[in-house]
Amino acid sequence: MPTTLSTDLYEFTMAAGYYAHGELGSATFELWVRELPRDRGFLIAAGLEQALDYLSRLQFTREEIEYLRAVPALRSAPDGFFNDYLPALRFTGDVWAVPEGTPIFPDEPLLRVTAPLPEAQIIETALLATVLFQTSIASKAARVVAAAGGRPVIEFGSRRAHGTAAAALAARGAFIGGCTGTSNVEAGFRFGIPISGTMAHSWVMAHATEMEGFRRYMEVFGEESVLLIDTYDPIRAVRGIGRARMHPSAVRLDSGDLEVLSRQVRQALDEAGLRDTQIFASGDLDEHRITSLVDKGAPIDGFGVGTALSTSNDAPALGGVYKLVETTQDGIRVPTLKLSAQKETYAGPKQVWRRTVKGAAISDYLGTSDEEGPGDTEALLEPVMLAGCRVGHRRALDTVRSDSLNAVRALPETIRRLKKPGHYPVQVSEPIRQLADKVSERIRKTRH
Amino acid sequence: MPTTLSTDLYEFTMAAGYYAHGELGSATFELWVRELPRDRGFLIAAGLEQALDYLSRLQFTREEIEYLRAVPALRSAPDGFFNDYLPALRFTGDVWAVPEGTPIFPDEPLLRVTAPLPEAQIIETALLATVLFQTSIASKAARVVAAAGGRPVIEFGSRRAHGTAAAALAARGAFIGGCTGTSNVEAGFRFGIPISGTMAHSWVMAHATEMEGFRRYMEVFGEESVLLIDTYDPIRAVRGIGRARMHPSAVRLDSGDLEVLSRQVRQALDEAGLRDTQIFASGDLDEHRITSLVDKGAPIDGFGVGTALSTSNDAPALGGVYKLVETTQDGIRVPTLKLSAQKETYAGPKQVWRRTVKGAAISDYLGTSDEEGPGDTEALLEPVMLAGCRVGHRRALDTVRSDSLNAVRALPETIRRLKKPGHYPVQVSEPIRQLADKVSERIRKTRH
Repeated sequence: MPTTLSTDLYEFTMAAGYYAHGELGSATFELWVRELPRDRGFLIAAGLEQALDYLSRLQFTREEIEYLRAVPALRSAPDGFFNDYLPALRFTGDVWAVPEGTPIFPDEPLLRVTAPLPEAQIIETALLATVLFQTSIASKAARVVAAAGGRPVIEFGSRRAHGTAAAALAARGAFIGGCTGTSNVEAGFRFGIPISGTMAHSWVMAHATEMEGFRRYMEVFGEESVLLIDTYDPIRAVRGIGRARMHPSAVRLDSGDLEVLSRQVRQALDEAGLRDTQIFASGDLDEHRITSLVDKGAPIDGFGVGTALSTSNDAPALGGVYKLVETTQDGIRVPTLKLSAQKETYAGPKQVWRRTVKGAAISDYLGTSDEEGPGDTEALLEPVMLAGCRVGHRRALDTVRSDSLNAVRALPETIRRLKKPGHYPVQVSEPIRQLADKVSERIRKTRH
Repeated sequence: MPTTLSTDLYEFTMAAGYYAHGELGSATFELWVRELPRDRGFLIAAGLEQALDYLSRLQFTREEIEYLRAVPALRSAPDGFFNDYLPALRFTGDVWAVPEGTPIFPDEPLLRVTAPLPEAQIIETALLATVLFQTSIASKAARVVAAAGGRPVIEFGSRRAHGTAAAALAARGAFIGGCTGTSNVEAGFRFGIPISGTMAHSWVMAHATEMEGFRRYMEVFGEESVLLIDTYDPIRAVRGIGRARMHPSAVRLDSGDLEVLSRQVRQALDEAGLRDTQIFASGDLDEHRITSLVDKGAPIDGFGVGTALSTSNDAPALGGVYKLVETTQDGIRVPTLKLSAQKETYAGPKQVWRRTVKGAAISDYLGTSDEEGPGDTEALLEPVMLAGCRVGHRRALDTVRSDSLNAVRALPETIRRLKKPGHYPVQVSEPIRQLADKVSERIRKTRH
């Protein structure tokens, strides 16, 4: 759970500066991803629930304020900042956001925050860390799940996650991206995600023989047991299971050549009369290895995916930003943008409209929030917090997941490709371009 | 902070199975990293403090137990598991560990846990996630800090971290690896790490002109200010600062060709009489870019490093494992190992001895914990928890950091190389090899 101090120090120095100058007018920031990681054709928005939860609880403890007061970089901040401003600080702004589980593309705001300038500033770091991480995992999961072609995928990667808090959040992101469940118990407890798990190699090793380990496990857990058969020799393990007339619901392979082994194990299971015992595979899997196994027809009924899902290891960070797009000066709204060479942005609050044909997304339209949007489109950003209070309908997490699965299926095939995907069309509106030109012109004249 | 449910479900199914069969004898597990990520010559141990804190607090709430009771996979677990075992569960075992900040190598245990089998099992996932993550970040930081050749490196990457909890832990790992400080306020509050930070582009953009932004910032923060000069044009910004007779302690560049810009900015600062104003650089930096800037003599006085440090983005997960090395059967200690094809391990509890010559590490010796170790060596694993209570001297975090910096400097140059490092010699003792052979032989005979 983020605390009020889960942020970069410069958010507080700037807030103190704004406070010192009475610059407390309303400002709007937007959060978006600049570009897609290699081989990604789309992202799946996730993490909004935790972001809003953080905003709802934003409040300093006395101890936190005393800590800040002693920070050397804040030595010159006015006393009122510590005595009045921080103790009273709550998040009082408005938030518009793209619902979790929605496919999104570069330059499209996932989140738009309008609040008094220092408030909107202080929350930057936590919003980015919260939204970008789950979005990155949900996006990776959508790929892995697509590769599995309907076979269940369980997120397994807690031990390789960036700490235990990240492990539970990764499980949530992976579920939104379409995973069937997770091994992470905290994610089950906190988010209601289905959890699963049976035995590790240590269970087998802790018993005098492998069969003794299997027998003792099945004595407790019965025919729902999933037996891990690769501690020594998977085929001998299956033959032993057959001879002992055990009937596990599944066996799991966690190493070796999964294509070859799964065929041999399937045959051995069938010969032992265990035709309904499924084969579950794990061990350094990702979307590419799963694609290869599925394409070759490996008789695998489900996949456990670890590091790839808990860290999005091929793209462990998204280039997401949270940028000022509008300030208020003397009560007047002033759109702004960043003018750096390769990092130019669009000014002003924005909205994204999506055009779908028979449920399939075909293109997006990025406009100003004042535009009406083209006909036959749906606006993606909706109000989720007004004056600091949550508003709108909250969907159950399994609804988010099924909406996400449907939305991904409705994307053009070229966008869903796992390698060298096509470019989804996002049209930037004429009013956005005109505003950007106007604001650039103004800034170029007056900036120095 | 990990909770008791921060784990994989199979830890609980196995624990329930052990409980059901009264298999509560002592077992020993070891945690180590199988192989180094590409281009890494060593790792820096970190995360032990949080791991021990987790073990000290291990205790179920009633609500957590009721949740577990309702988990389908645990339906067949004995009632006593929920009614007696879990409510009373505390960590009562012994832990030996390599001190934080110590360079370590593949196959060397970072942590050795001896506890009743189900206890030692339940903690697996949280220990791995806690120790591997900070170790991965500290190891990355050691590279970045070495590249900076004595210039300060500040960890900046909270917004790209895997959630806000990971952000604070990454700051801790980076500090252990030698960073001077962090932008993460929570890390300052919780761990006492020096924090720093001044302004973002939004500060400049929120004011009518860049100079107005600078002026207002310096009005509050005075000559300690670090002014961000690349929102528009860094050279014009510096000239403006000179004309306005501002005297910031440093300016920061966050984009563009940092080599070229830093030279131009240095010249402009000097021309403006701001010879003691330093140049601080940030923007997608890592050890390789910093090496290049330093090699070219770019006049940069300090670096801010984000994503590379908060996610170790080129190697975002370590292949770490927690493996059973000894069980107790009928009161007798029975060493064990995993026999899979490419994943064979050594049996029994181990110790690592390091040989140093004039303070410089030259080789390690991996032996059984019963060995005395070679002369002129120092044992790395030391007791940190006995019967569930913390023991031993606890070093301040800045001592851990300086010890780590000294230890890295004492490694052979080939090991410290940022690309294609050499292989540090770790000698596996004769008793370890003999034990592994004996145990393999025994398991091969009896396993099925």
